[in-house]
Amino acid sequence: MTGEPVRSLRASIIAVGSELLTSTRIDTNSLTITETLDALGIEVRDKMVVGDRRADLAAQFRSALERSDLVIVTGGLGPTDDDLTREAVSDALGLPMDEDPSILDTIRRRFTSRGLRMPEVNRRQAQVPRGATVLANPNGSAPGLWIEHRTKAIALLPGPPREMRPMLQQLVSDQLSRRAGDVRLRRRVLKIAGRTESRVEELTQPTYSRWLSQTQPIETTILATPGQIELHLSTRGADVEAAERALDQAVGELEAILGTDLFSTDGRSLEEVVGDLLKRRVWRIAVAESCTGGLATSRLTDVPGSSAYVERSIVAYSNDAKTALLGVAEELIRERGAVSEPVAAAMAAGISKRASTEVGLAITGIAGPGGGTPEKPVGTVCIAVDGPVAVVRTFRFLGGREMVKSFAAFTAIDMVRRTLLDAPTDVDWIKKG
Amino acid sequence: MTGEPVRSLRASIIAVGSELLTSTRIDTNSLTITETLDALGIEVRDKMVVGDRRADLAAQFRSALERSDLVIVTGGLGPTDDDLTREAVSDALGLPMDEDPSILDTIRRRFTSRGLRMPEVNRRQAQVPRGATVLANPNGSAPGLWIEHRTKAIALLPGPPREMRPMLQQLVSDQLSRRAGDVRLRRRVLKIAGRTESRVEELTQPTYSRWLSQTQPIETTILATPGQIELHLSTRGADVEAAERALDQAVGELEAILGTDLFSTDGRSLEEVVGDLLKRRVWRIAVAESCTGGLATSRLTDVPGSSAYVERSIVAYSNDAKTALLGVAEELIRERGAVSEPVAAAMAAGISKRASTEVGLAITGIAGPGGGTPEKPVGTVCIAVDGPVAVVRTFRFLGGREMVKSFAAFTAIDMVRRTLLDAPTDVDWIKKG
Repeated sequence: MTGEPVRSLRASIIAVGSELLTSTRIDTNSLTITETLDALGIEVRDKMVVGDRRADLAAQFRSALERSDLVIVTGGLGPTDDDLTREAVSDALGLPMDEDPSILDTIRRRFTSRGLRMPEVNRRQAQVPRGATVLANPNGSAPGLWIEHRTKAIALLPGPPREMRPMLQQLVSDQLSRRAGDVRLRRRVLKIAGRTESRVEELTQPTYSRWLSQTQPIETTILATPGQIELHLSTRGADVEAAERALDQAVGELEAILGTDLFSTDGRSLEEVVGDLLKRRVWRIAVAESCTGGLATSRLTDVPGSSAYVERSIVAYSNDAKTALLGVAEELIRERGAVSEPVAAAMAAGISKRASTEVGLAITGIAGPGGGTPEKPVGTVCIAVDGPVAVVRTFRFLGGREMVKSFAAFTAIDMVRRTLLDAPTDVDWIKKG
Repeated sequence: MTGEPVRSLRASIIAVGSELLTSTRIDTNSLTITETLDALGIEVRDKMVVGDRRADLAAQFRSALERSDLVIVTGGLGPTDDDLTREAVSDALGLPMDEDPSILDTIRRRFTSRGLRMPEVNRRQAQVPRGATVLANPNGSAPGLWIEHRTKAIALLPGPPREMRPMLQQLVSDQLSRRAGDVRLRRRVLKIAGRTESRVEELTQPTYSRWLSQTQPIETTILATPGQIELHLSTRGADVEAAERALDQAVGELEAILGTDLFSTDGRSLEEVVGDLLKRRVWRIAVAESCTGGLATSRLTDVPGSSAYVERSIVAYSNDAKTALLGVAEELIRERGAVSEPVAAAMAAGISKRASTEVGLAITGIAGPGGGTPEKPVGTVCIAVDGPVAVVRTFRFLGGREMVKSFAAFTAIDMVRRTLLDAPTDVDWIKKG
């Protein structure tokens, strides 16, 4: 699949804990670890989740060590009987365990500082396979361990993310950078609105497939969330400048293909992009929501500092509220229906007039599961923006209630973005009011 | 760990696909599969994620087959060169591959029905390890495969969840129920508000630890999300009635311990519980939000039919909006600050009066990262309910902006629940206004 110019280090990740084998819990530590290893150019080769059984863990660990240069194990370092990582790893490596007096001392002091006596079970956390380096844990009692075994390296990290993360960062600067050598991974994330995943693929695949065979090969992945499509570009190599140049070139080609549908190449979310567009003009926005029930405003206000440009928002579910709070004429609702383009436009104009903002946004639709008709089925949503231009459009979103809300909120914020761009080019999208 | 009365079948789950080894994608199929196997009393022993490498996959598959009675593989059944599950499994089992004419026919007809010619690559999807049973895929071109190999069973399922799920259901009725025998898993989920995870553990552990050694042993797990703590109880056995009786008894014991902090024992979310309390009284609610930016209302309106009781909501970020839309006195804001109990109370009273609803809810606080002071640091949130009783309370939530918003929205909805209960018992929580 890949055209790696340099053989990179390979890693296996093992998450330990029977709770991670239930239907409600997922190992998310491996995502943080993967991101960290990616940046170092270390390739994650496989991931495993194992329950709290010593023999199972030892067997999985042994086979990971055969395949990979680096094995990172998270969890199972606690003080209780079902915390078996230390023992399983020492079994697998054939290393005896010693009690480390400095760990014991640190744990004891942790308890003493809170006026408590260290329970005898915590003594287990001071057991260390011989030759291991101890990694301090500022956020908990379980220390981490770093073991160099022949050509291989092993890290044992605690399971709770807030304990694991700082320790992983420490590992990067102390041990991993040196081991990883000069190969680095560079990455860009492009975010796209107003296109389906398959359409983005169709448009961009002829271009990005060429990048695999160039001198500095670039790998491309497509991801979809409700409304938003992401293209992830990544490239490995020792020459970071060449990697960055290749990525700049690639991003430029995609910008030419995707036009204004491409809204972010620097990691910013849609809400941040819209917030920046508003701030640049010192403009404010007011929002009138019906079927999205406040979700669009909640998204807009996820951005720190958004109180500078989000003036107010009204969720007007009932027709009475639409009339009383937004000034939508009763007969308009009666004649055209609450879910209609004229009502959406009146809501947007009403909220921006009453709030004296430069931009008004309105969303009215049928989130379901009830309320649909043959003419206006569930998922029908009218969105209007009253701003530099007045625009209104009707969408049909698929999926359940939360999916429709999510699509509608995203699309509404994107419509604001498009009206704020100096030159909206997509005339099919922007209908002049 | 467990006190299983009967030896249950053991399963391993393998997810195939290099995209699942990136920092942004996660294997969620295994959660669906675990839930399905749980219900059959089949224990998931481990999970793996493997990239698109034939030798790696074959090795992982072989070792899973040694440990487990059932191995479920998802992904890698597509038509392209990097879809290698069929080949890797036939390598591992030493089975030759045959072309299945009926699969070929089905795939061909799939294409013809859309007026397309089947691309030659799709022929690979008709390759089947000898002796395998073909599982029809109504939602895609990749058929699934079921293989019985000596005492073991193997299922190969497609990676896209909407293709995988119906096939898994089919497997349950056709093959898995029979294999699983009579052992079943029964489960209850209890949801708790207003307590920390460690406090819930402290309160309940002495009780639930006893259940492990009773005739019908019950296992208990604690999970935490912002604001909400869940206790998951589960028990296995052939006697489903005995299992249900034991769970009823256990839930009763926890109800006695947790009182009104326990808000759901039947799967309903907090929003649904509050919605049901409002509907029972034919009451409506209006919401005034500041720092949560619409999130509390969005949560309330995630419930189908919520338009019957959510009358309106106003996000009033600016002081002007608080005065103009909610009737909060300017001098009150000047004297006490926008984030204060009197202002929260005035917002709640203002919105319920203007909307003529039985219940008003108001949230005002500092979500951060800016805006904090030594007296009112980031995370300070005042919540008021104006309803059968008037209550107001100040909280200090930890975490970043989205975490504070999430905690505040959850806690606000929970305050509504507590005021709606006929006899609020926790006087420390409910402060009469």
